[in-house]
Amino acid sequence: MSRSATLHTPAETPAKKAGAAGLEGVVAAPSEICFIDGVAGRLVYRGYDIGDLVENLHPHAFEQVCCLLWDGKLPTADRLAALRHDLSAVAELPPHVLTILSALPKHTEPMDALRTAASALSSSDPDLKSTEAAPNRRMAIKLTARFPAIVAAFHRLRNGLAPISPEPNRSIAFNFLHMLNGSHPNETLERVMDAALVLHAEHGFNASTFAARVTAATKADMYAAVTAACGALKGPLHGGANEAVMQLLLECGDPDNAERVIREMIAPRDPAKAKQKVPGFGHRVYKTFDPRATFLRKMSRQFGEAAGNTKWYEMSERLIPIVKEAKGSNGEPLNLNPNVDFFSASTYYTMGIPIDLFTPVFAIARIAGWTAHVMEQHANNRIIRPQDDYRGPFDLKVGPIEARE
Amino acid sequence: MSRSATLHTPAETPAKKAGAAGLEGVVAAPSEICFIDGVAGRLVYRGYDIGDLVENLHPHAFEQVCCLLWDGKLPTADRLAALRHDLSAVAELPPHVLTILSALPKHTEPMDALRTAASALSSSDPDLKSTEAAPNRRMAIKLTARFPAIVAAFHRLRNGLAPISPEPNRSIAFNFLHMLNGSHPNETLERVMDAALVLHAEHGFNASTFAARVTAATKADMYAAVTAACGALKGPLHGGANEAVMQLLLECGDPDNAERVIREMIAPRDPAKAKQKVPGFGHRVYKTFDPRATFLRKMSRQFGEAAGNTKWYEMSERLIPIVKEAKGSNGEPLNLNPNVDFFSASTYYTMGIPIDLFTPVFAIARIAGWTAHVMEQHANNRIIRPQDDYRGPFDLKVGPIEARE
Repeated sequence: MSRSATLHTPAETPAKKAGAAGLEGVVAAPSEICFIDGVAGRLVYRGYDIGDLVENLHPHAFEQVCCLLWDGKLPTADRLAALRHDLSAVAELPPHVLTILSALPKHTEPMDALRTAASALSSSDPDLKSTEAAPNRRMAIKLTARFPAIVAAFHRLRNGLAPISPEPNRSIAFNFLHMLNGSHPNETLERVMDAALVLHAEHGFNASTFAARVTAATKADMYAAVTAACGALKGPLHGGANEAVMQLLLECGDPDNAERVIREMIAPRDPAKAKQKVPGFGHRVYKTFDPRATFLRKMSRQFGEAAGNTKWYEMSERLIPIVKEAKGSNGEPLNLNPNVDFFSASTYYTMGIPIDLFTPVFAIARIAGWTAHVMEQHANNRIIRPQDDYRGPFDLKVGPIEARE
Repeated sequence: MSRSATLHTPAETPAKKAGAAGLEGVVAAPSEICFIDGVAGRLVYRGYDIGDLVENLHPHAFEQVCCLLWDGKLPTADRLAALRHDLSAVAELPPHVLTILSALPKHTEPMDALRTAASALSSSDPDLKSTEAAPNRRMAIKLTARFPAIVAAFHRLRNGLAPISPEPNRSIAFNFLHMLNGSHPNETLERVMDAALVLHAEHGFNASTFAARVTAATKADMYAAVTAACGALKGPLHGGANEAVMQLLLECGDPDNAERVIREMIAPRDPAKAKQKVPGFGHRVYKTFDPRATFLRKMSRQFGEAAGNTKWYEMSERLIPIVKEAKGSNGEPLNLNPNVDFFSASTYYTMGIPIDLFTPVFAIARIAGWTAHVMEQHANNRIIRPQDDYRGPFDLKVGPIEARE
């Protein structure tokens, strides 16, 4: 696709800057939160490499990452204890939100239930009218504490089960699995969940975070911005991709079928059938291996071995060379690498998380990054309002309705 | 503010295009829906000047504008009849949405109630999983028909009144006022409301529409995109401004106070007090008179005269030269012109619409534009994912928690 569109600009309009399709490579704002080097395959939160964070923050790694993203530095023991206390204190859902989750039809998509509940949370928050740093941080804590409760409660309600309250003094990873399944996760399960939350917590100006910043830049509040982000995360080109990966693995069924299924997607034998993108492969930013996939790959293997079920890990490994070597329409290999969604699918599935909760689990992690970006946007705000390149007609006149065609 | 930020770009990253603060003047995508000439003060929907549309489409002007925005041309009599039938057929709210509106605390901000209900509408829509043109148009019809019902129902519920059903074969303008007040609006009132809906229906890549497109560009569905747009419209720098205008008019109380109040905002006598923007004045795009304000000004006067209450119209007129001639910090006149929010405030207030419904009324109109843009984005999609200019630290290492400061 051309990076600079041809402009149709009548002479009287002010000069426009040619953007790029999808704003690819266009800088929308400065930020101090996240650095991504797509060529080197490097992801940095506030100066720390993702691998350093995922391997060395245990325990309560995700809570520490929340401090890092919100406050700009890793917490001391006291700051971490304070955050854990604050998260525990607000983790219960307000009664009206439970009523709303109960009112939603059982077939509601879980991301839609999460978005509706996130939106409804605003009513009970006395900080709502502020966009200042301290109230914003309090709202971020409430949203981060309550996202797991919403996802778990809706899943239980749609199955005719009563929601379970979070336990005090537990990690977010522990409580999510506890509230979802009604039993305490073992240490391995808690640690894998915690690491997955760290790996998904933040990723620069991705589409959902950008939707949150566009919203916050009107000086709309934290809940408005996070609700917008939930809408964007749902899309199959964004957070929705991890669900599509698992559907693909299930469609393959057996590693021996994988090659045939993938080839049929990339280059269908029936020329009338459209080519499809393989979910979980390729990324606009990463031109090499997604560094998050490196860690999820390791976790998927280790966790599969611990759980005595490596089927989905093995299937995933089989797909990688097939997709990498598959040839595009020009006859060249596609050379696509797996992204963060690819190994999160087999990991979550082996953990027993229902497929249609994969994207909500992504949201439980990314809320940390969304809220950090809303705080940063509000602290140094300018409304985000690009232009379009108008290519429609001019100088039409309204005529009588009878004369129209 | 500098238009091209200095970039901190490590040598190994791919070249970035310098954006502009808030993407001002940056083209984000082609579009055939709306042309705005900020220098000439011109607004065009699909080739028709806004003045031509607002003056010559009566009756059912807003429904005709929906056809225009969605289908690219004004409807024939048959197409308009079909749309009116389709809108009527789906205007009742699904029961779960009424339950949710009843569950929201009465002090919930009406824009938050609208956003939550818009999000919840997805559950009952069999078209939800599609991003194709025909299902998208059906979803647009449902949203356009139901937005007035949501706003009116929530307002009645918070006042302890039962929601009122829409009447078949009436205009959206009629039904909104009927469902809100429980009585039939007279012809003048219906016509003013209809014209206000036309004037607010569409405005290019404004922040809420851009939030909708960023969301839709992940291939998220119509409801996800519209919910995101509701979040962005709420902000005081966007749709929320019309409420602030009315608060200002009320604060002035009497035209004779206006000069003192405005001066105190622009150049406070106490140097410790921050300068404030005057709501309803100035616009990023319009460097001259906002063409929508021209028509709202006329409507505000005519309607005030018909209603025997020109107080707020007159107050508005008094403010214009005061703000225009007020001097900025450099001693030069600010030379700010009123925008669309300025005369909509006095118009809605004189119509008896509660102040905190002004932004939801804006949404009842803008849903036409949002849904048209979602259709256009889905029809020619590319994910919208800009970059940030990272200005944070590098090469930090995770140390033991005890050693942190």
